[in-house]
Parts: sequence; C-alpha cells; structure tokens
Amino acid sequence: MKMLDTRLYFITDSTPYSEAEFLRRTEAALRGGATLIQLREKERSTREYLALACKVHVLALQYHVPLIIDDRLDVMLAADAEGVHLGQSDLPVDIARQLLGNDRIIGATAKTVAQAQEAYAQGADYLGVGAVFPTTTKVKTVLTPTETLREICDAVPIPVNAIGGLNKDNIDVLRGIPIAGICAVSAIMKADDPETAVRALSDAMKQKLGI
Amino acid sequence: MKMLDTRLYFITDSTPYSEAEFLRRTEAALRGGATLIQLREKERSTREYLALACKVHVLALQYHVPLIIDDRLDVMLAADAEGVHLGQSDLPVDIARQLLGNDRIIGATAKTVAQAQEAYAQGADYLGVGAVFPTTTKVKTVLTPTETLREICDAVPIPVNAIGGLNKDNIDVLRGIPIAGICAVSAIMKADDPETAVRALSDAMKQKLGI
Repeated sequence: MKMLDTRLYFITDSTPYSEAEFLRRTEAALRGGATLIQLREKERSTREYLALACKVHVLALQYHVPLIIDDRLDVMLAADAEGVHLGQSDLPVDIARQLLGNDRIIGATAKTVAQAQEAYAQGADYLGVGAVFPTTTKVKTVLTPTETLREICDAVPIPVNAIGGLNKDNIDVLRGIPIAGICAVSAIMKADDPETAVRALSDAMKQKLGI
Repeated sequence: MKMLDTRLYFITDSTPYSEAEFLRRTEAALRGGATLIQLREKERSTREYLALACKVHVLALQYHVPLIIDDRLDVMLAADAEGVHLGQSDLPVDIARQLLGNDRIIGATAKTVAQAQEAYAQGADYLGVGAVFPTTTKVKTVLTPTETLREICDAVPIPVNAIGGLNKDNIDVLRGIPIAGICAVSAIMKADDPETAVRALSDAMKQKLGI
C-alpha cells in the first residue's frame, strides 16, 4: 500500500489566473494543509503543461505533498510527478499500471459501482467519485447520487473521494458515508484566501464527517 | 543507428473521414509503399487517440512500417508504437529520449538550423523541416526557405525530410538538396486513391530528386 492521504485533495484550475497568481494560490492551498494535489490542464500544449507541472512540483515537494497529473502520463513521467489521474476518456488504468509499475500513484474517476470495481481491479490506488453537486469546472457534469457513492465505498478497498461542487457548507450530505476524503477545486482555488479555505474545509470535514 | 527509412513518410489526417474510410485510406497508403507512417490527432481524447493508434498499428505491422505517434509519448507507449514525433510545442527531445531509451524512434520538427542542431544534440533520429509550401493541414504555417532546408541537411548527420504542401508536381524545388525523404499528408490522404498517389509520388521522387 502506498503512502497516500487523499483526505483533502486539491485539484487546480489555472484558467482564470496569471501564472504567478495561480502559483501563489496553489502554494497557499499547500500551506493550508492540502494532503494531495492534482494539476489539471486541458487547453495547454504538452510543453506548456510540462512547464507548469515542473513549477507546481517544486512547490508540492516543499510541502511533502504528492503531485498527481490529470490525464497525461507523458507529462507525469517528464515532470517526475508522483502519479496520474485517469478519467473514463483517458488511458485505461490497466495500461497505465503496466507502463508505470507499482511505485507511482494511479487515481481513477468512477461514476458507477461497475466503473469503480473495474478501476480497482485494473490497479487504481484511489477513486474520485462524483459529481456530488453540479460544478462550474466541468461543462457537462453527470451527477452521482450519494447512495451510489456509498455503494462504491463498500465495493472497493481503496480510498474513495467525493468530488463535485463540494465546500465547507454543503458537505453534510456526505455524513455517514465512509469516504476517505474530499476533492475540491473551486472551493479552494477561487477562495479569497486559499490557505484559509483549506483550513476551513478541513475543520468542517472533522466536525461534520469525522474525517 | 536505427533501421529507419524516412523516404516516403505518410502523415495521417483523420478529420475529414469516418474511421472505416480513414483506415481504408491509411492501408492503401501502406500498400502503395509508404516507408514510415505518423498518426497525428489533435482533437481526440487520450482514449480515442489510443484506440485509433492501436488500429493503425495493426495495419502498419502488416506492412512492416514503423508507426510514429505525433506529440503523445503516453499514447505511443500505450500502443507500443515504434516512435514519437515531437514539435516545438511538445515534450523536449532530451526528456523524451531519457524516458524512452535508445530503442524507440524520436523525430522532431525544426524550422531553423539552430532548432535542428538542438534536436539532433538532444537525441532526435530524424527531422521534419518545413513548411516548404503553405499547407491546409495546419492553420498557422511558417514557411521555411529551401535554402534553410539545405543548411539543415548540411548541419546534422541524421535523415532530414521536407514537409509542407509537397506533391508529385511541385517537388522540383527540392532538386539538389540532400534530403532523406518527403513527408506528405494531403497529397496522399486526400487523393482519389492513396495507393496510386504514393506510387506516383515515389516515382516523381526518383525521377526528379534521385531518391
């Protein structure tokens, strides 16, 4: 089992910011206590994605937080990041696992119990499950009922994170569901102060969810 | 030195076609004698790119032609293709070489002597240089003068291919320049019969360029 703490999983969105502001906000989230960070870029060229990944990796290493790269195993390898996150439109988990061996982290997105079981069987280390709430980050979002989230938690032995429009004020819906953690984009990235936002989210998770 | 024949390098463009028609045309080009094939996809998801790469690889293997994947080292690895082609917006050649070792083919795009020398120094196996003529495949094309093409051929010891709007009727401009071969997209892909088009281009290269 890898050292993997998915409890407060910060997923970036650089699109609204200058690079300097993006990096400032990213470091603030790390300083606030994010336990895992994912760089997610959809519009950049490979070289631009890599350049940004290397800069974020420098920050993440300072805070001893593993860096996960969304979708792009090539960028992950080139940046020597700790892992890759694979959605249903990305590389299949089993192929990525073959290419990476067991040392790297592979995360997967699952919206159904069947997808969750497949990802686990193929070698995923954790799952992101959602969207729990509609999100502004992804244009087309298919919602996953919290009942499905609970079934997935029961169906696989790896950490399961809830994702999708979650923030400190609405995580009550997750009460009693044995998730390992929460993925947050906007609640951290777009906060006035990402460091404070991470601390507030962490406090709310302890109080409301007991994690 | 790798077994690498860049003489008649067919670069695909699937955008105008159904998958069946695209594969039919691609196989026709292989049957006609393309010596190298590059799959170039810009709009597909990683999983779609991989799925198409695997199908093209099956064809390429039948004709004993190495398959090069444009830009995406991850897709190349996942499809177990023979190589990757890297433009100036893709992974740097030296990083790709580190990740791949010496068995895989790495090609690079160069528009200047400096770019060509850098790509060679970083481990590129061949260069694509152009565009010689304007092309409909790429929206923004910077033309490379044939004099620069000649200087690049003289500056690096690896195979240099001319690319950009080339066809059997206009390759005269390359006469006397020590290129290893020609890259063609539209002249083959959009031909009434790609097999005949490859043969005609090959004949014209022999007659007009002596290669």
